[in-house]
Amino acid sequence: MSTVPRIVILGAGYGGVLTALRLQKELNYNEANVTLVNKHDYHYITTHLHMPAAGTDDPENARVSISKLIDEFKIDFVKSTVVQIKPQERKVILEDGTLSYDYLVIGLGGESETFGIPGLQEYALNIRSINSVRLIREHIEYQFAKFKREPERKDYLTFVVGGAGFTGIEFIGELADRIPKLCKEFDVDPSLVKIYNIEAAPTALPGFDPELVEYAMQVLTNKGVTFKIATAIKECTPDGVVLADGETIRSSTVVWTGGIRGNRLVEQAGFEAMRGRVKVDEFLRTTQFENVYIIGDCSLIINDQGRPYPPTAQIAMQQGVTCAYNLVASIRNQPLREFKFDNKGVVASLGKGEAIGIVFGKKLKGGMAALMKKLIDLRYLYIIGGIPLVLRKGKF
Amino acid sequence: MSTVPRIVILGAGYGGVLTALRLQKELNYNEANVTLVNKHDYHYITTHLHMPAAGTDDPENARVSISKLIDEFKIDFVKSTVVQIKPQERKVILEDGTLSYDYLVIGLGGESETFGIPGLQEYALNIRSINSVRLIREHIEYQFAKFKREPERKDYLTFVVGGAGFTGIEFIGELADRIPKLCKEFDVDPSLVKIYNIEAAPTALPGFDPELVEYAMQVLTNKGVTFKIATAIKECTPDGVVLADGETIRSSTVVWTGGIRGNRLVEQAGFEAMRGRVKVDEFLRTTQFENVYIIGDCSLIINDQGRPYPPTAQIAMQQGVTCAYNLVASIRNQPLREFKFDNKGVVASLGKGEAIGIVFGKKLKGGMAALMKKLIDLRYLYIIGGIPLVLRKGKF
Repeated sequence: MSTVPRIVILGAGYGGVLTALRLQKELNYNEANVTLVNKHDYHYITTHLHMPAAGTDDPENARVSISKLIDEFKIDFVKSTVVQIKPQERKVILEDGTLSYDYLVIGLGGESETFGIPGLQEYALNIRSINSVRLIREHIEYQFAKFKREPERKDYLTFVVGGAGFTGIEFIGELADRIPKLCKEFDVDPSLVKIYNIEAAPTALPGFDPELVEYAMQVLTNKGVTFKIATAIKECTPDGVVLADGETIRSSTVVWTGGIRGNRLVEQAGFEAMRGRVKVDEFLRTTQFENVYIIGDCSLIINDQGRPYPPTAQIAMQQGVTCAYNLVASIRNQPLREFKFDNKGVVASLGKGEAIGIVFGKKLKGGMAALMKKLIDLRYLYIIGGIPLVLRKGKF
Repeated sequence: MSTVPRIVILGAGYGGVLTALRLQKELNYNEANVTLVNKHDYHYITTHLHMPAAGTDDPENARVSISKLIDEFKIDFVKSTVVQIKPQERKVILEDGTLSYDYLVIGLGGESETFGIPGLQEYALNIRSINSVRLIREHIEYQFAKFKREPERKDYLTFVVGGAGFTGIEFIGELADRIPKLCKEFDVDPSLVKIYNIEAAPTALPGFDPELVEYAMQVLTNKGVTFKIATAIKECTPDGVVLADGETIRSSTVVWTGGIRGNRLVEQAGFEAMRGRVKVDEFLRTTQFENVYIIGDCSLIINDQGRPYPPTAQIAMQQGVTCAYNLVASIRNQPLREFKFDNKGVVASLGKGEAIGIVFGKKLKGGMAALMKKLIDLRYLYIIGGIPLVLRKGKF
């Protein structure tokens, strides 16, 4: 039997890809066998999915073939779906096989959280993957085509977005940009189209600077969005949504962006989790198994104010870097490094040429923020794929 | 009251547009008031609709704005839907008004004929208009997107076309061309996609040269089409079709091209009609009302073999020319001209670069036939809109 330690990385999202890329760079020849497992043969750029969902960009620009990111001479890639994680046995069950490991990195990403609101699971669409955003895009276009045959069905032209967090706001911005084009394509009077954004919290973009939130809502309202803030969705039905204030909005399109939780496989594996997120130690390892790292949306890290950091691409990437460092250190019997989140800021796009953000502590809005958003996107492409990927996928 | 005769043309299809264009050219100033009524402000090129239906061409290439075709100084255009024709009162009721006429031209086009087969009306799609083909295109794309979320639903990737007449065969050819592109776009294994063409008659393309029919079926079979000829559809359900031989095909997409009938308004007006088609006299007038002409799919003309000519663009255009001639002759108290159909031949496309046809009595197949099809399309654009329209809409 080989004495070379086996590292298995589950998930090729932000965290998993960064871990793999760093291991590929740091590990010496034959120092470890690294296997990356992912459901698809591509990595997708989650922060970009709101655009193909609304149809304002091609889904191809939101994904990268994994074979273009990793060096398959150094890292084995397995395209498969994880069925079960067995930390006691140091095994991962795939839908078509089993992998044994010495070190495991769980970067399986998040799932939509519906908080038990009836009907959301069945009738709402989610912005979670390439497949799910292609479904949203096609669903929206189909509603316009159906409306032309049944012009009495105004619900075909009513779009409800549940949740005014990051994803909800960014999607709404793109959708509002796309509507006039769809109206032109399908000969539909734009005044018939309604876009609602519904948020249970007392404000849109909770936790964001109030002045910037105000600006964002103004921009989106000018684009035709109706906000219903501090209003919970009580139920989603095949005909639309029922709100907590008793109002019913008839709509054939409900997109739910209101919640995210960790992957259920993590709970099923026996890790102590809150909504699928596992509190990890300062080195990103589970408290139960030293050889299991959890990064990205499935991990839970408490900040200085005693609150969990929200799951973002930024934190997942930084975790990937630390995780790879600690894996190499473990193999070499060197001391591990503590994970410290370095918040570089955050930018939310509001459609073409408009955004809000706080970058290095500075408030930005309008064109400057939109430009910053683009730079962040390009920087990410550069990190994972260098100049060639920037040239291929970067939109200028 | 004006003594200038009022001519009302209902429908801006092949027949109506040709009538209007010829009247515009022939009539002297103030010799008649001509009004063209159409549901949309565009004319659509019905023989081209199979392409946007399959998504192989933009719907914009299958329609022309009526204002670009007719001279609105000479002909009034009314965008409205006809509700009722009252030949005794010489009136046409529109959804938003009433028009009186001295001469009426009915060119309202055909409707889908389902021969009473249960479920076709409710669950099948039709290739009949810009709106209906946009619906088909969006419906097909949506099935691919839905399949990715529910990969057990193979019926999402099964496409049934009822009818192997002209429209059915031409649509199948385009659809077979589009499928590989859709598979690529949505990451779908092409071997999962099934296309069925079902025809109750003992042959595809009934009435066409058997050698060419054989060729067409071979071309389409090679593209992955499964034919079920001499097999009637017994029922269409939300889940697919049940065939007369007992087989059930599970499919979420049924496109019905198996029958065409005249417009129901013609029957409701009291004209003696067979499936909405009215037998007209040798001058294209109804036998009951000398001042009412019927052309195109609503008219019935018996050929030398005692059988009705099939409704085609070619015959409708020739009827439009004769109809305009006779209207002018009536106004001038000159003798009318008999309508004689001059069959220049027919070409059926089988997708990109493939077609079959008989043109001026000569059999054509493959690339030559496809080229001829293009020439016919360009000739039509030239007839109705001259060189500018050929340049704008013609695909080379």
